[in-house]
Amino acid sequence: MNTLQPVEEIKQIQEGNILMPQGFKASGVHAGLRYSKKDVGIIFTDVPASAAAVYTQNVVQAAPINVTKDSIAVTGKLHGIVVNSACANACTGEQGLKDANEMRKLAALKFGLEDHSFAVASTGVIGEFMEMEKVRNGIEALQPENTPEAAEAFGTAILTTDIVTKSCGYETIIDGKTVKMGGAAKGSGMIHPNMATMLGFITTDAVIEPHDLQQALSSITNDTFNQITVDGDCSTNDMVLVLANGEANNEPLTPDHPEWSIFLELLKQTSENLAKQIAKDGEGATKLIEVNVHGMHTKQDSQMMAKTIVGSNLVKTAAFGADANWGRIIAAMGRSGVGFNPDQTTIVFGDIVVLKDGEPIMFSEEEAKAYLENESIIIHVYLKDGNESGTAWGCDLTYDYVKINGSYRS
Amino acid sequence: MNTLQPVEEIKQIQEGNILMPQGFKASGVHAGLRYSKKDVGIIFTDVPASAAAVYTQNVVQAAPINVTKDSIAVTGKLHGIVVNSACANACTGEQGLKDANEMRKLAALKFGLEDHSFAVASTGVIGEFMEMEKVRNGIEALQPENTPEAAEAFGTAILTTDIVTKSCGYETIIDGKTVKMGGAAKGSGMIHPNMATMLGFITTDAVIEPHDLQQALSSITNDTFNQITVDGDCSTNDMVLVLANGEANNEPLTPDHPEWSIFLELLKQTSENLAKQIAKDGEGATKLIEVNVHGMHTKQDSQMMAKTIVGSNLVKTAAFGADANWGRIIAAMGRSGVGFNPDQTTIVFGDIVVLKDGEPIMFSEEEAKAYLENESIIIHVYLKDGNESGTAWGCDLTYDYVKINGSYRS
Repeated sequence: MNTLQPVEEIKQIQEGNILMPQGFKASGVHAGLRYSKKDVGIIFTDVPASAAAVYTQNVVQAAPINVTKDSIAVTGKLHGIVVNSACANACTGEQGLKDANEMRKLAALKFGLEDHSFAVASTGVIGEFMEMEKVRNGIEALQPENTPEAAEAFGTAILTTDIVTKSCGYETIIDGKTVKMGGAAKGSGMIHPNMATMLGFITTDAVIEPHDLQQALSSITNDTFNQITVDGDCSTNDMVLVLANGEANNEPLTPDHPEWSIFLELLKQTSENLAKQIAKDGEGATKLIEVNVHGMHTKQDSQMMAKTIVGSNLVKTAAFGADANWGRIIAAMGRSGVGFNPDQTTIVFGDIVVLKDGEPIMFSEEEAKAYLENESIIIHVYLKDGNESGTAWGCDLTYDYVKINGSYRS
Repeated sequence: MNTLQPVEEIKQIQEGNILMPQGFKASGVHAGLRYSKKDVGIIFTDVPASAAAVYTQNVVQAAPINVTKDSIAVTGKLHGIVVNSACANACTGEQGLKDANEMRKLAALKFGLEDHSFAVASTGVIGEFMEMEKVRNGIEALQPENTPEAAEAFGTAILTTDIVTKSCGYETIIDGKTVKMGGAAKGSGMIHPNMATMLGFITTDAVIEPHDLQQALSSITNDTFNQITVDGDCSTNDMVLVLANGEANNEPLTPDHPEWSIFLELLKQTSENLAKQIAKDGEGATKLIEVNVHGMHTKQDSQMMAKTIVGSNLVKTAAFGADANWGRIIAAMGRSGVGFNPDQTTIVFGDIVVLKDGEPIMFSEEEAKAYLENESIIIHVYLKDGNESGTAWGCDLTYDYVKINGSYRS
């Protein structure tokens, strides 16, 4: 089911989370920004962590993005991140920047640290100002601990209208030391309009310098977080942040380290796991769709085509209707911007071949429908133009998507 | 309301259609390809007409597209076009090409003309073969006439699940002669899956050589048909065909003709009229959305930004919910691929300013909601980067879109 090659050395931890790696604490509280749910959270490590981040490519970037960039720019190390939901602090001008800076300062003061020790992330309504009195009280109330409950509290505090919290954990051996990695994320949901942000937070106790961590994160983002789509819209607040506090005491990981590829795989599996959880919990979604394109000249073309297919409203509605509608897939391929030969195209739902080398194949509509009613469906496209492949993940387009996003603000 | 400058010389004809220009006839019949509706149609002119066409940019192109290209390539002139609905004749290989060629031959034989006198267009299900016995009988039954009823019959025969027929007519004076132009179109609707084709047919009695007509059509397509979007998917069968039979007896129109710009404007108004009708009748749509972007360096950037905004699922659902949700607009702008300064952005719904130079403006939610409940809404975005502007048209995203496209094939 998974397109990654299994790597023996990496073990997924059931109910893993951001606090599995040594030395991390977290907290999440209800500060009143949301009606009744937790809305301010923190991740903290006593030992400063190497930090790496990737951000939204939207021209419009929210204030916390700028503050986080500033923090990381100073030494490349962080003691943690403070996060709020309900308000994105985007399109809020000077006041927004002032508020994001104050959040950072309050978090740092709490631990007697310098401002640049903290990153800031926000998710919620665009164009509204932060209710800073509530935020101040919220940050004051945070009590970071290393417990599963604390990890869950943080995971809840970063949600907007996600249905479920998203977390995972993995471990491996590097230099004979156990290295752990945990992740938490939120995805897209917007009963209250304008919320569509993807936030991902990854902790690890690996020893790695900021520069190498950034290289690792940048190298796997295009294959993981950048290959999911819920509705094609890209937020002003998207951020994925990795913190590596070095408590595992391995030899510093660099591209020359003999186990560098294991670390990359650890980061990739964590990222892909979170990315798929985000796609599956897309607004109104009932199922996860994975599209694999095989046999192109370049990986980039394969990925672009896969993402175009999984992002097509027509493919998404067909998936909702459990309809093995391959005409919509080939039409999406045709407008993906990637050249290919329709006469050498094979399309497979699960293991049901519906088009082979450009020729429609008779198949059982009942079997296809039964397959497409699963909570997780996989579509394979085979071409004969090369040896590269690419994968993308998305979700179906449902009545609930329209309901959630067509609702009035209140 | 209209972004075009009013041109005094061009008059819209109420209930105008493709048979207003002199010398054109049409017909539409029920051949049994659809359950009960008309499904085979023809446009015919005794005098051969200069022909020009633009086609889908999809890599996958249906058989009739190839046949039409072949016909026009011979002399640049056509006596007409034969069209069917229900079956797209796309992804049908050699058999599909044979069938499209036979349709052309049958139409030509009917009038004792050579094959290349006719173009062919199809719209409907992808990946199914034409029911040629029915098509043969249909073409046999066509009886072209010059009556409003015949125009309407043709307009009906080209529909798939469009709710309404789409037509318009204009006239002007060139060289002291009355020159008329009429149009018919179908847009996107897909109760039966895989139908998403845009077809546009424009007739005129202007005198103009094929080469100049093609230049005129190509020059206005990017501002009209290419600026509408229903769901971002682009069909295998899209085609816009213009026939100019010269019955108006004006001096041949060329770029050097003193009234060339009037002809361009005539073609542009006809095309824009049809394009807006298609957008308004998008699948499940309840309203037409027009987005105007002003103040960019280039027209192309303005158009790309306008189309990104009007194509955003989040903007489309907000329009459905009559929600003046400007955060979604600026977020769409930010991912449009066009650089701009968010702090110099002004957003206006109708005449209600919601963001001015990057600052949120207090506005009456009730007034905004009342405006957005209109059947036709206009969004203006003002930037300060240049003097160019661009417009795009689309429709809202509704429960009915999901219903129509999530239905099983039957």
